[in-house]
Amino acid sequence: MPPRILEIRQGVLDKNDRLARELRIRFEAAGVLAVNLVSSPGAGKTALLEETLRRLQARGARVAAIVGDLATENDARRLARSGAPVRQIETGGLCHLEADLVGRRLEGWNLTDYDFLFIENVGNLVCPSDYDLGEAVRAVLLSVAEGEDKPLKYPPMFHSADVVILTKLDLAAAVEFDRDAALANVLSIAPHATLFETSARTGAGIDAWIDYLVTRHHGRLTRDA
Amino acid sequence: MPPRILEIRQGVLDKNDRLARELRIRFEAAGVLAVNLVSSPGAGKTALLEETLRRLQARGARVAAIVGDLATENDARRLARSGAPVRQIETGGLCHLEADLVGRRLEGWNLTDYDFLFIENVGNLVCPSDYDLGEAVRAVLLSVAEGEDKPLKYPPMFHSADVVILTKLDLAAAVEFDRDAALANVLSIAPHATLFETSARTGAGIDAWIDYLVTRHHGRLTRDA
Repeated sequence: MPPRILEIRQGVLDKNDRLARELRIRFEAAGVLAVNLVSSPGAGKTALLEETLRRLQARGARVAAIVGDLATENDARRLARSGAPVRQIETGGLCHLEADLVGRRLEGWNLTDYDFLFIENVGNLVCPSDYDLGEAVRAVLLSVAEGEDKPLKYPPMFHSADVVILTKLDLAAAVEFDRDAALANVLSIAPHATLFETSARTGAGIDAWIDYLVTRHHGRLTRDA
Repeated sequence: MPPRILEIRQGVLDKNDRLARELRIRFEAAGVLAVNLVSSPGAGKTALLEETLRRLQARGARVAAIVGDLATENDARRLARSGAPVRQIETGGLCHLEADLVGRRLEGWNLTDYDFLFIENVGNLVCPSDYDLGEAVRAVLLSVAEGEDKPLKYPPMFHSADVVILTKLDLAAAVEFDRDAALANVLSIAPHATLFETSARTGAGIDAWIDYLVTRHHGRLTRDA
């Protein structure tokens, strides 16, 4: 990239980092665990989030969600069926969410009313990686249908993950998913990440993910107390 | 986006358009049909391209390919098994190919040696849409595993398609693919696009795509003659 563009890009990232830090302080102060869900288009973010909102509410947690897409309010409508408050961000041409967009979309919500805030990012394995949204947990989803090589081909995104969630395990046989190869690739790029293997359709592995979220939230409250 | 960034982005796009026009003139003059393949990560660009290179060569066509990824030379190695000349572009952080990158990677190739040049873009349903690479055909792939709604959620990319290729049809039953909904969504955003329904695994629909390419190439030669 030309130097002038690199410089301006750095300015955008610096501003985003500053706003993300402010969001993080607000989330921490309100006791809300913010989770940023990122993946390719069609890896199953919305399906996982539907199950996550349902199961967390069944355990008595208070949840809310913000969903990003270039266009349509489809995901917000779909997620609102869970009964949780859900807001859509339509980004236009932008291939990722930014802290500024999230902060503005939070207006009117009292964050202390919630235990968890989920932010479903735009479907993209590249653009969102550099944009901190103030989240406590960045979860990168990888569907078994995408191929085992994706962590190697999109290293910045997987490197930035706190959690990697394999999705659509129900399709593993149909796509001849090579689990060992996929796990080795995840480990090579994101050795620090916690891994879950899930299917929103069968429910496999979802409870382990919910347990993780509850433990993270509880740990936060305990630490803050 | 701030005005200064919009302005600089426009400058980048203007420069790309100029270089893409030069490439298009070179491709036309050499009688090579350039095809830009774009999709989400894991939609099956490389699998389709493997089959395409193999079948075109079996029909006596001379083919070459350039493949873009953030990292790794895996796809170039995989495609080189076809016997066709293949070159990799590693983009680093860049989420799309640009005409400049393609032009530089063509150095040393005599374009008149080829009938078809395939350019496999970085897996991304957003970034590549604005970047003309001088191609005659832009093919947007959509795997049945991604969900029927993707044309609505990523309209600029699908709107820019000359061809839309549904892939992984062998998984249609496993993912409960709603073909009617998918076709309606494709039609609503890309009514001008030619549609193919394929499976690289079973070979379904690939010959129709090959026929289309051969016809497009022949039409070009006839028109130029």
